[in-house]
Amino acid sequence: MKEPVAYLGPVGTFTHEAARALFPGHDQALTPYSSIPDVLTAVDRGECEYGVVPVENAIEGSVNLTLDWLIHQVEVPITAELIYPISQYLMIHPDQAGRPLNSFTRILSHPQALAQTQMYLRKHLPRAALSYVESTADAALRVQENPGEAWVAVGTRSAGELYGLKIVAREIQDVPNNFTRFIAVGKEISCEPGSSWKSSLLVSLPSDFPGALYRVLQSFARHGVNLSRIESRPTKKRLGTYHFFIDAETKLEHPSMKQAIQEVEAWQCRIRRFGSYPSYTFDKINVFQPVDNREAEAYNQR
Amino acid sequence: MKEPVAYLGPVGTFTHEAARALFPGHDQALTPYSSIPDVLTAVDRGECEYGVVPVENAIEGSVNLTLDWLIHQVEVPITAELIYPISQYLMIHPDQAGRPLNSFTRILSHPQALAQTQMYLRKHLPRAALSYVESTADAALRVQENPGEAWVAVGTRSAGELYGLKIVAREIQDVPNNFTRFIAVGKEISCEPGSSWKSSLLVSLPSDFPGALYRVLQSFARHGVNLSRIESRPTKKRLGTYHFFIDAETKLEHPSMKQAIQEVEAWQCRIRRFGSYPSYTFDKINVFQPVDNREAEAYNQR
Repeated sequence: MKEPVAYLGPVGTFTHEAARALFPGHDQALTPYSSIPDVLTAVDRGECEYGVVPVENAIEGSVNLTLDWLIHQVEVPITAELIYPISQYLMIHPDQAGRPLNSFTRILSHPQALAQTQMYLRKHLPRAALSYVESTADAALRVQENPGEAWVAVGTRSAGELYGLKIVAREIQDVPNNFTRFIAVGKEISCEPGSSWKSSLLVSLPSDFPGALYRVLQSFARHGVNLSRIESRPTKKRLGTYHFFIDAETKLEHPSMKQAIQEVEAWQCRIRRFGSYPSYTFDKINVFQPVDNREAEAYNQR
Repeated sequence: MKEPVAYLGPVGTFTHEAARALFPGHDQALTPYSSIPDVLTAVDRGECEYGVVPVENAIEGSVNLTLDWLIHQVEVPITAELIYPISQYLMIHPDQAGRPLNSFTRILSHPQALAQTQMYLRKHLPRAALSYVESTADAALRVQENPGEAWVAVGTRSAGELYGLKIVAREIQDVPNNFTRFIAVGKEISCEPGSSWKSSLLVSLPSDFPGALYRVLQSFARHGVNLSRIESRPTKKRLGTYHFFIDAETKLEHPSMKQAIQEVEAWQCRIRRFGSYPSYTFDKINVFQPVDNREAEAYNQR
């Protein structure tokens, strides 16, 4: 038995797909939790050796709950990142097959999946009400449980397959290349040679924000440390005060990074290190059954 | 009849309270819309002269849907901001009065209200399931419609009053000072003399991000323009590419601001101006009936 891996469940979510990709061969050890805080807490308390949660989406931006729990609630290192393609599927109960798309009355999904497909949904199902549910897998389950309702679910292909739904449209996200960054946290993961590396830091400015952020960026620039992302998150103490979550393309132990951090800390900025970790990309979803594209496309074009 | 003001409804939401504060005397003209995109589109198309939507919360950070629609979907100027205190209430059906708090089975609210109260809810209702609904007012309505269920709603006091709920705990948000910034968009609003002013800009960097952001901040700093907020939002074209939504404490027509913008534009950064507008704070909720605190506190302490 492999060591347990906590992930944002239930079975059939995008995070489940990402956890399967990050921990091949661990299928028996993958343990679904019902929220991002629950995953991170399980790792923080040592109930699970590893955890997998989403951290950023190409369309929706940061997953604030992940950043805020890393910042405020837990002390867990980041040990890997996976950039994973997000393909949203529109799925119905097989009993509803043949019904025109624009006559469905309700769209069920997680708020972020609905946000990622809003253009498509406004165009093709303009009269349908949106229902937020706890996960994309939950949306598929509810459609399965209500065969007589004119409901559609938006979510993963694996959830549709799990609950026996019929796919009526594929890749319905608002931009063609929709990727989500997932992170693994907890114990160190053995990494493939030749992986590219990243580091994550939290910079807390001493007081007045604009000038201080400018000086922080100046330090990294001066020492040639390339930053791939800067995300402000509220301190939660007062409106208008922020922490900065920074991703760099240099390892923490690199001399230039050490010098930049030293300089920033000398100005009474607090820096917290989330670790250095390998960055993976995942281009092919090869763990699922192929879907018949022609059928879905024909349905969609009616 | 006053000119219509679109707001994120339904009746009894925090945005409704903010719209009433920003447009006193317009009560008859306040028109609820069911989503942030619908409010902004109504103003963009000229169906309403004014619109009111939330843009940032002290605990949860940016309201991404508002930023992304301002950036990508509509062309409407920002004409005012209101910093408004958010007090979350825990409310039950009167038929459930007397039931111990930790025996309630379900908590209904908007995802953001649930996020703002997560510590409180995990402590006091650890076994209750979370149900996302479309608005805090909708949560109150559903509790009213299900008198036999052990459900609680999290939301505004005004929604609780509207639907005849009993308040069992007040101010349950995770930090004591929880404020949300709302913006008005559309036609210019007459402003009180002596108001402080802000400007909002969108900066789109030419290509490589870290060095370019550093140079943008350098220009504003050099000309003495104080920035109160920098928020990155995905371009939605490719993971890892961002626009920067910037709030400044200087009017757009001020010479130092003009020089800074000119300098930034000279480096092939595109700048879009959302306008300069007065910034208001609202400290007292004086439009509602007083609530009996002692009763709520006594209930909460059992």
